[in-house]
Amino acid sequence: MQIVQVDLGDRSYPIYIGSGLLAEPSLFLPHIKSDQVCIVTNSTVGPLYQSRLQSSLKDKQGAQVQLPDGEAHKNFATLNLIFDGLLQARHNRNTTLIALGGGVVGDMCGFAAASYQRGVNFIQVPTTLLSQVDSSVGGKTGINHPLGKNMIGAFYQPQAVIIDIDLLATLPAREISAGLAEVIKYGLLGDAEFLRWLELNIERLVALDPDALIYAIRRSCENKAKIVAADEREGGVRALLNLGHTFGHAIETQLGYGNWLHGEAVGAGMMLAAELSEKLGWLAAKDVVRVRGLLEKAQLPIAAPKSMTVDQFLAHMSVDKKVMDGRLRFVLLKALGEAVVVNDVGLSDLQHVLQASISSGLADTH
Amino acid sequence: MQIVQVDLGDRSYPIYIGSGLLAEPSLFLPHIKSDQVCIVTNSTVGPLYQSRLQSSLKDKQGAQVQLPDGEAHKNFATLNLIFDGLLQARHNRNTTLIALGGGVVGDMCGFAAASYQRGVNFIQVPTTLLSQVDSSVGGKTGINHPLGKNMIGAFYQPQAVIIDIDLLATLPAREISAGLAEVIKYGLLGDAEFLRWLELNIERLVALDPDALIYAIRRSCENKAKIVAADEREGGVRALLNLGHTFGHAIETQLGYGNWLHGEAVGAGMMLAAELSEKLGWLAAKDVVRVRGLLEKAQLPIAAPKSMTVDQFLAHMSVDKKVMDGRLRFVLLKALGEAVVVNDVGLSDLQHVLQASISSGLADTH
Repeated sequence: MQIVQVDLGDRSYPIYIGSGLLAEPSLFLPHIKSDQVCIVTNSTVGPLYQSRLQSSLKDKQGAQVQLPDGEAHKNFATLNLIFDGLLQARHNRNTTLIALGGGVVGDMCGFAAASYQRGVNFIQVPTTLLSQVDSSVGGKTGINHPLGKNMIGAFYQPQAVIIDIDLLATLPAREISAGLAEVIKYGLLGDAEFLRWLELNIERLVALDPDALIYAIRRSCENKAKIVAADEREGGVRALLNLGHTFGHAIETQLGYGNWLHGEAVGAGMMLAAELSEKLGWLAAKDVVRVRGLLEKAQLPIAAPKSMTVDQFLAHMSVDKKVMDGRLRFVLLKALGEAVVVNDVGLSDLQHVLQASISSGLADTH
Repeated sequence: MQIVQVDLGDRSYPIYIGSGLLAEPSLFLPHIKSDQVCIVTNSTVGPLYQSRLQSSLKDKQGAQVQLPDGEAHKNFATLNLIFDGLLQARHNRNTTLIALGGGVVGDMCGFAAASYQRGVNFIQVPTTLLSQVDSSVGGKTGINHPLGKNMIGAFYQPQAVIIDIDLLATLPAREISAGLAEVIKYGLLGDAEFLRWLELNIERLVALDPDALIYAIRRSCENKAKIVAADEREGGVRALLNLGHTFGHAIETQLGYGNWLHGEAVGAGMMLAAELSEKLGWLAAKDVVRVRGLLEKAQLPIAAPKSMTVDQFLAHMSVDKKVMDGRLRFVLLKALGEAVVVNDVGLSDLQHVLQASISSGLADTH
């Protein structure tokens, strides 16, 4: 087992990474405050893993809330199912919520923990590769609004994150690829050495090689933890984590959440960021080829959906949270392994890159 | 103008108290981060004061959200009106929300500020005496759930609180009394000197004497700010602020929110706390007479609703947030001006005091 410590003062917490961890009571019990525990999961993951987790909680009084699966349900109505379950079971401020699921479950359970009686403890047990390397680290929680993704939420840290790679065995291949998009992101934005490791080992990851997975997850979590520790509330360097996300959110918003997976949209978004970086003269053509090759080997999209228009991209990006006072901000690449925030991208460069990508693009349903 | 500084490290903020403050741009503008401002008010207060506030904001881009008035609307659906307004006006993370209204508006606007894009700035302009002395100080924000009051929310501090006593002129007398319940609470729980001042000046406050109001509001805010600074997240001494509230919440829950005003329920709750303290031998009979006399002069209820049963009280109190691991906790009085948290009240003493109060009680619609 590997441990990554996220250093946030009195909100610090450990991430445990390994095989078989779901069946280790000693990882869970020290982070549970009272006899009250509430497992929050969804209708896909719950039947597979909930009873194994319940066994690790020994004789804790376990309420359980099973949410409908999918980004389409990341809303107030579903969030309220968690509050209903907690209140019906009369859980008090000393309860501990455990998120057993992917990013949607983690985001909603985290926001429920942040808000229930103005804040209770929670533990993340991410069950997708994407959530293991991304959404379970950093304290971003929340739900969607019809007018925008993740528009309502809180910065709220868990007591611990327990990453059991065995849970990936039941994950569809497409979701593994989506998770690899975020793994590749850490290499691209600030870890050139890891990027080279990924180029050599990407097939092992696609094939779920345990050692490769544990290494890639640990390195991803370390990279993210370092950035989050430097900027918990996203005032500065944390913006780099949005590499590929401004474009990606536009794709998700246009196609409707869930048609492309988040990681797939981020994959295409990173490709667009690389191409825009080349257009600005920062990346060489061979760098862009390396990015494209890596994304392709990870079985990720390398272009925007061909049904989208440039104007649709622009419209969605202007309400993105990454906008500061009306100016479009992008995270682009000065070099492979070195991302920067850019405020002054020319509109025509942007339009050109978007149009080229759309013209080479994929069908909407990836 | 008086200024009370709430000392919470990097979340510190000033409370301005005086007459005519709503028309002072210099109080607002330094606390507004960008050109985006959103006034959140309700259908009662908005028509009276919204345009006066808008004039003080000069040329800021002002979105406005008017909520339905009343505790019955302190729920997800109403909260969502704020998010709708912000997103439709494309407000970003640098927006500033201004809560113009009583406790319900302040609690909902504060929770919206805590949650919109995971946290934006807000300013409180409390328009009721209750919210001026209580809910605008301390950072408690939130909404109700059908199964409990204030069950969903956040601890979140405003940038500033601007208390203009002129706004009390349009407040019904019953709401002034409800506010005085919380004022009296500060005297009872920890400020014997202020309690004596209140006994001498309560009629001036009922008559809205400006000097008396400014003094009582300042002293209340100072008392609350001191306690909040010592215990921002309610782990210890802050529990004393719940004097009268465990009983009060049971009354509000049983009768339905809004039939008794919150302050009225707290008034009856403080009377019950005093009577239970006498039962335990801590207060003398003459102390209880002083409490009753002060509440009566403030035109507050001094007994539980006569329609309620002891069992209804017990049922509602066991899901109250003040319950720790199943044990009932009360805030009681060791002496006038000295509250303590008590974990081991005997059930028969409690039942006796509740029954005596109910037997002498008032009609439900106070």
